[in-house]
Amino acid sequence: MITIISGTNRKNANSFKIAKQYKDILQMKGQEADIIDLKNLPEDFLSTSFYENKRANKAFKPLMDQMKKCPKFVFIVPEYNGSFPGILKLFIDALEFPGTLKNKKCALVGLSSGVQGSAMAMSHLTDIFNYLGMHVLAQKPKLMGINDRMSKDRIADELGIQLLEEQAEALINF
Amino acid sequence: MITIISGTNRKNANSFKIAKQYKDILQMKGQEADIIDLKNLPEDFLSTSFYENKRANKAFKPLMDQMKKCPKFVFIVPEYNGSFPGILKLFIDALEFPGTLKNKKCALVGLSSGVQGSAMAMSHLTDIFNYLGMHVLAQKPKLMGINDRMSKDRIADELGIQLLEEQAEALINF
Amino acid sequence: MITIISGTNRKNANSFKIAKQYKDILQMKGQEADIIDLKNLPEDFLSTSFYENKRANKAFKPLMDQMKKCPKFVFIVPEYNGSFPGILKLFIDALEFPGTLKNKKCALVGLSSGVQGSAMAMSHLTDIFNYLGMHVLAQKPKLMGINDRMSKDRIADELGIQLLEEQAEALINF
Amino acid sequence: MITIISGTNRKNANSFKIAKQYKDILQMKGQEADIIDLKNLPEDFLSTSFYENKRANKAFKPLMDQMKKCPKFVFIVPEYNGSFPGILKLFIDALEFPGTLKNKKCALVGLSSGVQGSAMAMSHLTDIFNYLGMHVLAQKPKLMGINDRMSKDRIADELGIQLLEEQAEALINF
Repeated sequence: MITIISGTNRKNANSFKIAKQYKDILQMKGQEADIIDLKNLPEDFLSTSFYENKRANKAFKPLMDQMKKCPKFVFIVPEYNGSFPGILKLFIDALEFPGTLKNKKCALVGLSSGVQGSAMAMSHLTDIFNYLGMHVLAQKPKLMGINDRMSKDRIADELGIQLLEEQAEALINF
Repeated sequence: MITIISGTNRKNANSFKIAKQYKDILQMKGQEADIIDLKNLPEDFLSTSFYENKRANKAFKPLMDQMKKCPKFVFIVPEYNGSFPGILKLFIDALEFPGTLKNKKCALVGLSSGVQGSAMAMSHLTDIFNYLGMHVLAQKPKLMGINDRMSKDRIADELGIQLLEEQAEALINF
Repeated sequence: MITIISGTNRKNANSFKIAKQYKDILQMKGQEADIIDLKNLPEDFLSTSFYENKRANKAFKPLMDQMKKCPKFVFIVPEYNGSFPGILKLFIDALEFPGTLKNKKCALVGLSSGVQGSAMAMSHLTDIFNYLGMHVLAQKPKLMGINDRMSKDRIADELGIQLLEEQAEALINF
Repeated sequence: MITIISGTNRKNANSFKIAKQYKDILQMKGQEADIIDLKNLPEDFLSTSFYENKRANKAFKPLMDQMKKCPKFVFIVPEYNGSFPGILKLFIDALEFPGTLKNKKCALVGLSSGVQGSAMAMSHLTDIFNYLGMHVLAQKPKLMGINDRMSKDRIADELGIQLLEEQAEALINF
């Protein structure tokens, strides 16, 4: 099982659309996959999932449990202010430590409306995941100019599709 | 005016204690200062301060306005999962872009219970602030082993105090 | 006085051409400037300028002295293997520590034939210069697709020229 | 086969001593290993191994060939000026691209006389190796205070030894 995390809580986000496309790619390769969409974090996430309240939020617990059980992840990472969204780090901060990510494996996909393709965001995330003991696949597609690549809610350009398919294959064998 | 941001929403956080101490240091040097404590972000911050709701949260607006008016900042940055807290990036993501931080100046103070003193967190923040057009002071004290340095709610070790005072002086002249 | 460092030892490098153009821009703003071209490092630099031999290389000493005396720098940074050239770090490693760069100021210009514009290289350099106590200007032009921007040994596209001129102005006032 | 790279050309370096110790650890686990010591780069490396001269240096060619054939690496990374030594990036820049490191695997060991244990150096190297398509093991021991850990040319403290042994085991299974 691979869990794909759509790394923003923005409604109608490209990240979630790409997460669905990535799930299809994995399934066509015979690999089961599931999606966690950060848009579905509970409304009271901020006030009830941290510090002395950690593990108290009943709506968040199923997501925590899924993260704990799953051995491999794909993170879809939009660029916000030169790095990744705060909500994604908040999600990581809310997970059980150190059991959740240690000795696991993941792949990162970056996207941006501008030209950087979330490169710095993925560098920062790699630092964090390595710190937490999770291996990060070397291939990290940088999907810059994302709005020009999307058509009918999917990445539609040939290079973009190829990058996702090659990465998915590499992650299955990682 | 310098605004000091306590970079976590944890209750009774060392970051807020150090923010208060830093304010005293600045005031002893004749520099007015104020504190924004991320613990005071409104309860509904996450659901009402982003995307289509940006600028709608009346409790957050005074903080946004203070950030917009202020030319210099100090960020007190605890280490969470090998970087800085998600809540701090969420706060940055909620600010008005690009007017809030461009061409301004800031200093970073790192703290950690472990030995890294938030070095990576401050590297990531520097990338983000430079991306947003804000200059970052080179001196970034790394207050590792923070619990051993604190006494009566203040940094009490001589080296720690010296690092903060030298940085405060440098920031005033930056 | 501002010293511009052309950050590669490659012959006929774009970096050196941009260094010359940057010098012209500074001079048109009334700011004296000089260039250090890493292509001119002595042939025996590697074996005679480090460790027990530090300061022994007579051909390198004038460059060391110029770096020590100068208060402001511009580094022209081509992208080599996802970061900056090894020769540039070698040059930094050969400088006198800690007197050479502490409390000084610099600006970084990135260039690449690909689309990243040396963004990661400049992030790594910022870490290093901040560690050494040198402030880095927030504006860091990323001149991606450099070969399409060059004409007659100069950056010729309007945006590229504007980015360099705005940065030069900001550095003079930094 | 695993190749261990001692990441500095300093004589009598701790990095080379740790490389030898790491080789012993790997061999005790039944894993053959070899060492490349950057101290042994040819004297004329800088002037004869790059750009139009690439592949011309006969003394460097055997090292290039060894790097090309080997599927796994350990890099011993001392901290120089807040990152890794320039000579190590120069070595990487001299390798054949893209065949040398793509789809390979490596582990990083950081050491420093100070308290950071080369953390930033390993972050920068991870960016570079991922860019070149090489996977980096999440575990990256940070051997700070290295001089206090060494005895009889070996890491002698229990924690240091344990970190190396666990990493070696993880690399064999990576």
